Amino acid sequence: MKKAVVLLSGGLDSAVTLYYARDKGYDCHAVMFDYGQRHGRELLCAEKIAKACGASIKLVRLELPWKGSSLVDDKAPIPSGRSSREIKEGGIPSTYVPARNTIFLSIAASYAESIRASAIFIGAHTEDSSGYPDCRAEYLESFGKVVATGTKLGLENKLKLEFPLIRKKKAEIIELGRGLGVPFENTWSCYKGADGPCGTCDSCVLRAKGFKEAGMEDPAVERT
Amino acid sequence: MKKAVVLLSGGLDSAVTLYYARDKGYDCHAVMFDYGQRHGRELLCAEKIAKACGASIKLVRLELPWKGSSLVDDKAPIPSGRSSREIKEGGIPSTYVPARNTIFLSIAASYAESIRASAIFIGAHTEDSSGYPDCRAEYLESFGKVVATGTKLGLENKLKLEFPLIRKKKAEIIELGRGLGVPFENTWSCYKGADGPCGTCDSCVLRAKGFKEAGMEDPAVERT
Repeated sequence: MKKAVVLLSGGLDSAVTLYYARDKGYDCHAVMFDYGQRHGRELLCAEKIAKACGASIKLVRLELPWKGSSLVDDKAPIPSGRSSREIKEGGIPSTYVPARNTIFLSIAASYAESIRASAIFIGAHTEDSSGYPDCRAEYLESFGKVVATGTKLGLENKLKLEFPLIRKKKAEIIELGRGLGVPFENTWSCYKGADGPCGTCDSCVLRAKGFKEAGMEDPAVERT
Repeated sequence: MKKAVVLLSGGLDSAVTLYYARDKGYDCHAVMFDYGQRHGRELLCAEKIAKACGASIKLVRLELPWKGSSLVDDKAPIPSGRSSREIKEGGIPSTYVPARNTIFLSIAASYAESIRASAIFIGAHTEDSSGYPDCRAEYLESFGKVVATGTKLGLENKLKLEFPLIRKKKAEIIELGRGLGVPFENTWSCYKGADGPCGTCDSCVLRAKGFKEAGMEDPAVERT
């Protein structure tokens, strides 16, 4: 059975990607990261999702001796109360974590080589992506070339990067996930780590819009 | 003064690259990695080199929960006693660490963004590189595109990847370093971490050949 390494964050997009990879016949190996993000809530969600999907899961702890994003810097404010249009037109927000997806993908590539996986899956998508540079097709195609030229398996044409959600809208991703049986109640999107989603950060706003457009009620993580 | 992030390993190539970047007018910020390599000898060397060059230095500890290379796996043997020709023709050796340079470069890109550096330097070179896929021009050009498309500074055309040694032979690198005043006595190339260089691993063989061709005696780290 061919293997896939899947980046899992505990959020909605990566959960749908994991189920998508399983649906494509892959034996799935999830990787999640603890990189000093504000809360451990999403890590708990990732573990539940992997378990529900029957995937193995590896946790990688990353302690980088510098900061540079409001998602990992307690002193920086997280943008709040913006409409989906303001988010789309606002450029790169302060929640951008420098080179985050590149770090995640490079470590996923290392893991993929060590278990001889055939594919690396990432759930990035351009639409509704808050303007992060590392969620664009051009970037992911470049990273695909890094895998093809800079790894042993890539050079043998045995490892490729897959980003199946890249051109989908949030509503389409939710519809796809519904069809695949993704447990949305175990996904966590909020940038803040309170006892329930804040409803006002960019991520909450985009999630709410997606569920609304998909004509589905959000079975969000229950408040504790 | 424009800033550069320079990958520093404690080896000869990265030391020359650091001095090269300083010579090009950069305020240099070295990054070194502790990724479970067999010995800490090269880390001590890296610290000495950075200090001598007047560069700041950051140590990043990486503990990945998998292995896959003889450089990080105590049970796997390190190839020994091969000639430089056998090394060149032998394909990718067991000392290849899966996606190592990609992980290092991605973390360097994150650091570069956090200090608003203009360049990331890596001392990789194809000739005498033991056949590692991530020491080839095609790979580094691909990673340069990842920086250009997947980082905020890259998108603004303010951050680029530099690999000035890529087409140089070891002897040329040594000659370049001599001209720049690189303290070769503080560089460590041996894959084994004994009290002195083993003289028989691929790295020792290629270093000896380089010094010989450069017509220079190797002021290698003294045996302790």
